[in-house]
Amino acid sequence: MAPVPAKPAVRYRATVEYDGAAFSGYQVQPSVRTVQGTIESQLERMLNGQVRVHAAGRTDAGVHAVGQEIVFDALPPWNAADLSRALNSLLPDDILVRNLRPSGPAFHPRFDATGRRYEYYVGPPSTGPLRAARVWALAEVPDFGRLKNASALLIGRRSFAALSKAGQPELGTECTVELASWTRTCLGDLRFTIVADRFLHRMVRYVVGTLVEVGIGRRDVAEWSDLLCEQEARPPEPAPACALYLTGVRYAEGWNRNPGVPCLWPMPDGDHSDRPNHEV
Amino acid sequence: MAPVPAKPAVRYRATVEYDGAAFSGYQVQPSVRTVQGTIESQLERMLNGQVRVHAAGRTDAGVHAVGQEIVFDALPPWNAADLSRALNSLLPDDILVRNLRPSGPAFHPRFDATGRRYEYYVGPPSTGPLRAARVWALAEVPDFGRLKNASALLIGRRSFAALSKAGQPELGTECTVELASWTRTCLGDLRFTIVADRFLHRMVRYVVGTLVEVGIGRRDVAEWSDLLCEQEARPPEPAPACALYLTGVRYAEGWNRNPGVPCLWPMPDGDHSDRPNHEV
Repeated sequence: MAPVPAKPAVRYRATVEYDGAAFSGYQVQPSVRTVQGTIESQLERMLNGQVRVHAAGRTDAGVHAVGQEIVFDALPPWNAADLSRALNSLLPDDILVRNLRPSGPAFHPRFDATGRRYEYYVGPPSTGPLRAARVWALAEVPDFGRLKNASALLIGRRSFAALSKAGQPELGTECTVELASWTRTCLGDLRFTIVADRFLHRMVRYVVGTLVEVGIGRRDVAEWSDLLCEQEARPPEPAPACALYLTGVRYAEGWNRNPGVPCLWPMPDGDHSDRPNHEV
Repeated sequence: MAPVPAKPAVRYRATVEYDGAAFSGYQVQPSVRTVQGTIESQLERMLNGQVRVHAAGRTDAGVHAVGQEIVFDALPPWNAADLSRALNSLLPDDILVRNLRPSGPAFHPRFDATGRRYEYYVGPPSTGPLRAARVWALAEVPDFGRLKNASALLIGRRSFAALSKAGQPELGTECTVELASWTRTCLGDLRFTIVADRFLHRMVRYVVGTLVEVGIGRRDVAEWSDLLCEQEARPPEPAPACALYLTGVRYAEGWNRNPGVPCLWPMPDGDHSDRPNHEV
């Protein structure tokens, strides 16, 4: 009798939230706690073998996510509901997997992404201990008009070599920024939203740090413009990681998550991953 | 020539916020990190001598505060502005002192208080990692009507011996509850607000834990009523400390702080301690 052919593995995708405070970033590294390493080790317990998790992007140490997208393979008889329940029951409190579902065998969260959305939250002075790990509480309030005018210069395609950590890899330093806006939240914070096709290492933190310098008058717009053209010698200071959030990734079918961060911005009851996607 | 008489010490009061997560409660204890011990040790550095800080109430390990009231004495030439600036610059990020001002020599934050306000936040299921340390994310959503009806029974004066940790001290176990209400926040949380003349050890956590049991149908209102009369044998389970906040203390001149918690509820820009007090 011919052997029964093994059932093929099924590819699953999910949207992942994490509090970045206690992780050395997303990407797996030896002997430190990472988001990827933590998810992989729990999936390996469940699936009895080595599991590779691919994500839309590698967030830095301390950076949070509410819209990271991941993919991994699992053999039947596992299904999406059981995988979701089992994985969330094993993961620590600072990671949550939402909306886990089959993805189709060819889906890749990084290569198929057409845009990433990051949000950065600047709190008022004396924001207080209960929000200190979620926003950047500045001693001086930046001028909202200056922030808006300076960030408008970001739109378009250019090299971000001067606004990222030295040593960028294979793909070069050019990024296309399609949205860069400042809004006020109902909590009195200033929120910076940036959407681009890709982001370099520390890029959003350098951008925000420099925009805030412009907003409080420590750097003028001409210097900011020169940094964008790589003509400015005064290096930028990165804004703190604890106030930066990866809030969504865009695929052919739309964003994987609505804008906003649950801790800082009103969200209706229930699991927001089920609500319809909309553009930023 | 007669010696110049020493200037008398001035008594200062302040409203204190803290994130309770990394403290073994408010009250000073040997060899653990407490809120009182942390504030006293920094004041002792500034004032060159032993300093005693008195507070309105002793919050338990893990419980947060945005409206704790403290008092301490300092000699001239210290003044309120310098004390506030120096103390906040020395305190760790999880404590912030607001609205530091002279109090009059007879003021005592505990004995002069006529009421304390605690708030407890129950989040929707799957609240997520970014709010996990701020709300109690229940797997089942409690019935709002049952919560409201059960909490109405709290109003009035009674012993809370069955709803507090065993071994209460000198003053007995009677408390007068003047407000006990459930509201929904704009973040989709259920907020329990309770105002009483005094609170026993763990009392709010036992009350909320039991009200939630009633709200999800695990305990009926008759049992709750029996607990309030100390006639029920099934002991209550305390709700987690991380979602409990001391949000204000009432003195003759009014509350020291408005209701609400900055992380969870919209607050206008700036230091809210300067806005007019209002009743709960």
